[in-house]
Amino acid sequence: MTNWPVHATWNGPIVMIGFGSIGRGTLPLILRHIKCSPSQITVIDPDASRSQLAEHQGAAFINEGLTRKNYRQVLKPLLTSGPERALIVNLSVDVGSLDIMRVARETNSLYVDTVIEPWKGYYDNPNATHGERTNYMLREGLLALKKELGTGVTAVSCCGANPGMVSWFVKKALMDIAAELKLKVSEPTTREGWAKLMKRAGVKGIHVAERDTQRTKAPKPFDTFLNTWSVEGFIAEGLQPAELGWGTHEKKMPPKGKKHKVGNGAAIYIERPGADTRVRTWTPTQGPHYGFLVTHNEAISIADYFTVRDGRKVTYRPTCHYAYHPCNDAILSWHEMLGAGGKRQSQWHVLDENEIADGMDELGVLVYGHKKNAYWYGSQLSIEEARKLAPYQSATGLQVTSSVLAGIVWAIENPSAGVVETDEMDYKRCMEVQRPYLGTVKGYYTDWTPLKSIEHLFEGDIDKRDPWQFQNILVP
Amino acid sequence: MTNWPVHATWNGPIVMIGFGSIGRGTLPLILRHIKCSPSQITVIDPDASRSQLAEHQGAAFINEGLTRKNYRQVLKPLLTSGPERALIVNLSVDVGSLDIMRVARETNSLYVDTVIEPWKGYYDNPNATHGERTNYMLREGLLALKKELGTGVTAVSCCGANPGMVSWFVKKALMDIAAELKLKVSEPTTREGWAKLMKRAGVKGIHVAERDTQRTKAPKPFDTFLNTWSVEGFIAEGLQPAELGWGTHEKKMPPKGKKHKVGNGAAIYIERPGADTRVRTWTPTQGPHYGFLVTHNEAISIADYFTVRDGRKVTYRPTCHYAYHPCNDAILSWHEMLGAGGKRQSQWHVLDENEIADGMDELGVLVYGHKKNAYWYGSQLSIEEARKLAPYQSATGLQVTSSVLAGIVWAIENPSAGVVETDEMDYKRCMEVQRPYLGTVKGYYTDWTPLKSIEHLFEGDIDKRDPWQFQNILVP
Repeated sequence: MTNWPVHATWNGPIVMIGFGSIGRGTLPLILRHIKCSPSQITVIDPDASRSQLAEHQGAAFINEGLTRKNYRQVLKPLLTSGPERALIVNLSVDVGSLDIMRVARETNSLYVDTVIEPWKGYYDNPNATHGERTNYMLREGLLALKKELGTGVTAVSCCGANPGMVSWFVKKALMDIAAELKLKVSEPTTREGWAKLMKRAGVKGIHVAERDTQRTKAPKPFDTFLNTWSVEGFIAEGLQPAELGWGTHEKKMPPKGKKHKVGNGAAIYIERPGADTRVRTWTPTQGPHYGFLVTHNEAISIADYFTVRDGRKVTYRPTCHYAYHPCNDAILSWHEMLGAGGKRQSQWHVLDENEIADGMDELGVLVYGHKKNAYWYGSQLSIEEARKLAPYQSATGLQVTSSVLAGIVWAIENPSAGVVETDEMDYKRCMEVQRPYLGTVKGYYTDWTPLKSIEHLFEGDIDKRDPWQFQNILVP
Repeated sequence: MTNWPVHATWNGPIVMIGFGSIGRGTLPLILRHIKCSPSQITVIDPDASRSQLAEHQGAAFINEGLTRKNYRQVLKPLLTSGPERALIVNLSVDVGSLDIMRVARETNSLYVDTVIEPWKGYYDNPNATHGERTNYMLREGLLALKKELGTGVTAVSCCGANPGMVSWFVKKALMDIAAELKLKVSEPTTREGWAKLMKRAGVKGIHVAERDTQRTKAPKPFDTFLNTWSVEGFIAEGLQPAELGWGTHEKKMPPKGKKHKVGNGAAIYIERPGADTRVRTWTPTQGPHYGFLVTHNEAISIADYFTVRDGRKVTYRPTCHYAYHPCNDAILSWHEMLGAGGKRQSQWHVLDENEIADGMDELGVLVYGHKKNAYWYGSQLSIEEARKLAPYQSATGLQVTSSVLAGIVWAIENPSAGVVETDEMDYKRCMEVQRPYLGTVKGYYTDWTPLKSIEHLFEGDIDKRDPWQFQNILVP
């Protein structure tokens, strides 16, 4: 099939850092939709076994892990090898995003990543405080860099499925809700305009509500961590403290909840691992379930983006957090790992599209607390669809890689935007590029509230008058 | 194969109440090891679909669910139909054990059950307090009945794998530890003697540490509760408050922990569902893992049995509780059910021996806190072994049904013992009867302590000086 729409043309070097499950899924999408030659592409990855798949598609492969020490030395020659500017697609773990962004700026290269990744040793630094190991602090670093670098070549931060695509869904969902509520609005054109619209719509908060129902053909082997995307990435974020954007309607801090003393104040953290912190949530197909409050950049960036201020005083902010039900094998993997005191399993394995029997990744935003109660808008992508749509990835992977593709296209089309978060991008254009890879994309209203998920024998301390208090969402 | 050892002869009626997974596994064991005719046996069960398997083996089948209203009317004629005394084997759910015990006494029938089962509506009574829904209170009822009935025909209470067999393992383990510690002891012959020996051995507590590694061939269907034994039974006990025998070495009550105001005071309860209360524990094959602190009669009876008193003052008691890692599909089933606010799945299914791909039930007692640190003694029974040893049951089932067999044999051999708990029975004789059905039966010393299972990034409130404090065992 050669009939793919070409969204942009790229003549310079393309440097892909990291070739794990997301990298290998992204490469064929670039080759499909960006007019370029495979010979322009260099893949850098510390795992030599990954060279074949890259080279098979015509890309060069450098077997190297980037570190604080070598990253300039490895990257600079690649980025400045020709007359045309380069594009960096950073899909790695343990490679410091902010330093790579600096190199991008210095070499006038476009840049796209899916996470503000720190250099190795940050997530599990035993000498760091909980507050220091948060995504909030990582994002504060990004905001400082954005300010420092100012206008210039575009660097897109955190442009995967989430963080990334879900920020576009929030805007789409908000427009849908405004229409349903018959608010007279024209689409906002500024951050302040979007924030005011969310306030006006009466939104209390947003769950990034993801349910992965992909099931494996074989039962999970013991002493093995299975996941539908990077095990390394999931363990790293799952052992950070839980974090959430903290809405102005919230009455009660959660147990072990802490505020930051520095920064913009949009989020709080909870002194327990996100992957062991359960929240009551809802998605269309499976209905009510427990998600895990794993920290994610979008929880903070969305809450911040939709903050309304009167001078310096915050007059409105939504609560926002991830509520992630990974595939059942990942649930069992966490249970096994935490049960062994956090000792990592001897085997880590990302399930490939052939090992998965069935199921889908249902990933969207549950926008709640308004007059229509709650509205989930998102992508419902089955493994069967994913297999047909693109090679080398599960449904989960394809939601991420198609977001990266959208980020690349937007960056090429908007090359001088400086450092941007996905909340600041043109959500319609991004969703247009990505749409063919998302399966069913649809909105659902629901009358579900967290109070409907309280087990009646052990109610605990709940707020019956205000169903959407975080107190009711967090499982004690 | 007809060469089974016959342990006893029975000429009277045998009335089996309940023919679920345990009932159907017990019937062939009775026919193997008790000299009797199938025509003496009547099975009573509310599920008509179970008749065929009973009748196929020559037993009569009465399709009836026993209730407070009908139990005397249904049972009395069966128990008094001939010149010989009857035997009641109660393996039902929702049938009040204490009332059946009264009928047994009135009709001079032997009686064996596996749980102090209340009549329907007790476990999930929304009007009951947490304290009233405990096994402690059920056992207080048994102790009162034991006192009231006094000497007379034998009624064996709670004689499954656990409660039941594990009480025999505790005595065996204690003798092993005493030998390892080179204590000069002859085997105790009284309760007081056993309790003093445990104190002298320096035991702080006991986990009934069970790890079920049986895995299914097919992935768990959604909206389905899977287990290797009664789903109904597991849900009932899992939604009772967590309970544990409370040792004299404990320094700190757990959060939401409560003492009873009545009764013998051997146990406390925690105001959270046992199936959602995790404890750090250890078994030989899988090593450290999370078990669930599901309430069980043995947690209380063992703690009570091994209590040393000086007059009325308690001078020693071990902590004792269940630490149960059910099969992975049951872990996922609880996660699904609790995530839906406790709404029961539309399908309940007990995995049969043909649906299980591999794995074993590793069920024993982890006796800890003494000079050799900790000693696990128990049964390691694989599904492959179970299939060869007896029909119609998983490994989990066979551990239970062979305990029931041992209880029946002991009751026949000791027909005038009154109401007894398994702690009071001859552990050697019971283990001898049961031994061929338990796979590997073995003891393992370990240097594991709960402190080794603490995730270092989120230590929380732990007691580093005394590793075996319950504070370190309970996952916050």
